[in-house]
Amino acid sequence: MKFTINRTAFIKELNNVSRAISSKTTIPILTGLKLVASEVGLTLTGSDADISIETILHADNPDNQLAVESMGAIVLPARFFSDIVKRLPEDNLTLAVTEGFQTEITSGNASFTINGLDANNYPHLPEIDGTDSITLAGNVFKELINQTVIAVSTQESRPILTGVHFTLSGNELMAVATDSHRLSQRRITLPESASTDHDVIIPGKSLVELSRMIGDDNPDVEMRLSENQVLFTIGDRLFYSRLLEGNYPDTSRLIPTESTTTVEFDAHALLSSIERASLLSHESRNNVVKLTLDPAGKTATIFGNSPDVGNVEEELAASGFEGESLEISFNPDYMKDALRSFGQTVIRIAFTSALRPFTLVPTEDQTNFIQLITPVRTF
Amino acid sequence: MKFTINRTAFIKELNNVSRAISSKTTIPILTGLKLVASEVGLTLTGSDADISIETILHADNPDNQLAVESMGAIVLPARFFSDIVKRLPEDNLTLAVTEGFQTEITSGNASFTINGLDANNYPHLPEIDGTDSITLAGNVFKELINQTVIAVSTQESRPILTGVHFTLSGNELMAVATDSHRLSQRRITLPESASTDHDVIIPGKSLVELSRMIGDDNPDVEMRLSENQVLFTIGDRLFYSRLLEGNYPDTSRLIPTESTTTVEFDAHALLSSIERASLLSHESRNNVVKLTLDPAGKTATIFGNSPDVGNVEEELAASGFEGESLEISFNPDYMKDALRSFGQTVIRIAFTSALRPFTLVPTEDQTNFIQLITPVRTF
Repeated sequence: MKFTINRTAFIKELNNVSRAISSKTTIPILTGLKLVASEVGLTLTGSDADISIETILHADNPDNQLAVESMGAIVLPARFFSDIVKRLPEDNLTLAVTEGFQTEITSGNASFTINGLDANNYPHLPEIDGTDSITLAGNVFKELINQTVIAVSTQESRPILTGVHFTLSGNELMAVATDSHRLSQRRITLPESASTDHDVIIPGKSLVELSRMIGDDNPDVEMRLSENQVLFTIGDRLFYSRLLEGNYPDTSRLIPTESTTTVEFDAHALLSSIERASLLSHESRNNVVKLTLDPAGKTATIFGNSPDVGNVEEELAASGFEGESLEISFNPDYMKDALRSFGQTVIRIAFTSALRPFTLVPTEDQTNFIQLITPVRTF
Repeated sequence: MKFTINRTAFIKELNNVSRAISSKTTIPILTGLKLVASEVGLTLTGSDADISIETILHADNPDNQLAVESMGAIVLPARFFSDIVKRLPEDNLTLAVTEGFQTEITSGNASFTINGLDANNYPHLPEIDGTDSITLAGNVFKELINQTVIAVSTQESRPILTGVHFTLSGNELMAVATDSHRLSQRRITLPESASTDHDVIIPGKSLVELSRMIGDDNPDVEMRLSENQVLFTIGDRLFYSRLLEGNYPDTSRLIPTESTTTVEFDAHALLSSIERASLLSHESRNNVVKLTLDPAGKTATIFGNSPDVGNVEEELAASGFEGESLEISFNPDYMKDALRSFGQTVIRIAFTSALRPFTLVPTEDQTNFIQLITPVRTF
């Protein structure tokens, strides 16, 4: 195996594949990066058993300046190989497997010899044979991920809640996540219906990495499901993730359909106020802020308190008051995550009582995106 | 005590004074920031007992928008107060001490009440009564600091070596640091002679903070010495540091005056090569790279090796070869620190033997700046 390649193009794909490679894996060969040189080009593969990423640098893409002198495959220590490639002196590098699995990497006057591993021992990637796929614009899919993963549980005690629940039915894609204290639900109408309905749970961690790989160029993202794996295809990059097994709880009944008090805020301004109030609540044992609403007097006030340090009080700019007056306490960090997910918009918050979950929706689209937060009892 | 001030101007000085404040101090009041409102302006003080910083926001500077309504002093929890000030909603803030040491901070609709401490219990800053001072351009002083602190010891076993040794004699200022494995010496000729000679050791940690406070505007830095303290004045900012007590070792005899092999490198290119070689040495137990010089053949080659991972070899671009051939091993991290301190220049390295310290000097000024590195015996 021997090839020469442009270092910049190579590093870009090396960085993408490295997202899947963990140094903490219990399977030694997975700390490595797999390289396969063929007539088509150079294929890079990385995996941590949960996520696998494969990408190809095509021989016919002039940017890659790829010349494969002899075909073959090798697995190289990923972190270390990546450090070397990034520090090489010239625009191109040559990689050659010499004796056994010894690999020589040369660029300009610098010549590294490192010990590789037999690529035949590298695990095979899952086979996704399903022909059913949906395609979404990268920006839309990234937004959906970022709006839902915030509510994913970080506790391993209920593993199913560490994933986002995706249901595909007709031309509707719904994503829901909850850690049992808050919930985020996002619905997207697809241009075409899928031929089969699907109901899967994708690990939150996989979605975060996928979202990073989608990047800012708004590429199309194709999603293809099998029994226990999902494959996302972004151009020449394949992103595999295992699915979580089990039944996701029925979340539809958690979302209240009625309310007794509603109020509207600018999401960004409310976020700033909550951030101020949380400075105090973070110094306190029970990290809670209090909101009082007086629709008659059209006032909304936020309070934060720490017995050791002091307290904060701020009257909020609010509008659209309806219903009864209310005093409610909640974890400001859940509110901050929720508000950040809305971006620059006006939101409506609807309350039922001081002890029942309340909902946040953007006023401009009140059905496709909803955040729910459970209050904290303080009396 | 009550005043209103422009938040941007206030935050700038708050950040400067906060450099001296540590949350790890054993003296509780030193976790606080001292504020004194007077006719002249608002004085901020922070200290960790080793370093103290005092700065004044003048009432007559229109940028400060400072209005002192009533004079007084208070000590407020520094980190927490700083977080509050940075998150306030409006351009200005008002601070008022109300009952006892309770302090109200208001800006727009937000109102914080926090518990302060009696400013009378805050330690007094040292008195520097010496009239003898020298003044240097900020950029020159920053360069001197950054070139010498790299060689300061980080081990507390010989506390004296954690400082930089400054000697002031006539119009010559000399700074030397060594951790006993390497040494850095920088000499500056002053425009005027000081009236008294001085010989002091300033903690490396203080100099690093001072260097950051000097910033990039190249302000004049005045240095004033007393028995056990040094005071640096930068505009309206006072920076105090304690001095280290004891006798600094005589370093002048460590610097060799003769050599058997010399060679010249571009500092930046050599740094890149050493960085590559150290990728391997860092994976090895004894972190050493090997340099071979053959003045007859005009070749210089660097080697790095790790039994587990592999090896690297690179022929270096060098010139000005003189003397005998040589093979020498050294810690690449010391070499990297030294090379970075030279910036973009050509350096000359002079060797005596494989076991004696070697020196690095910029070819354009071979007397005022010298770095010395002790090699490692590998046989």
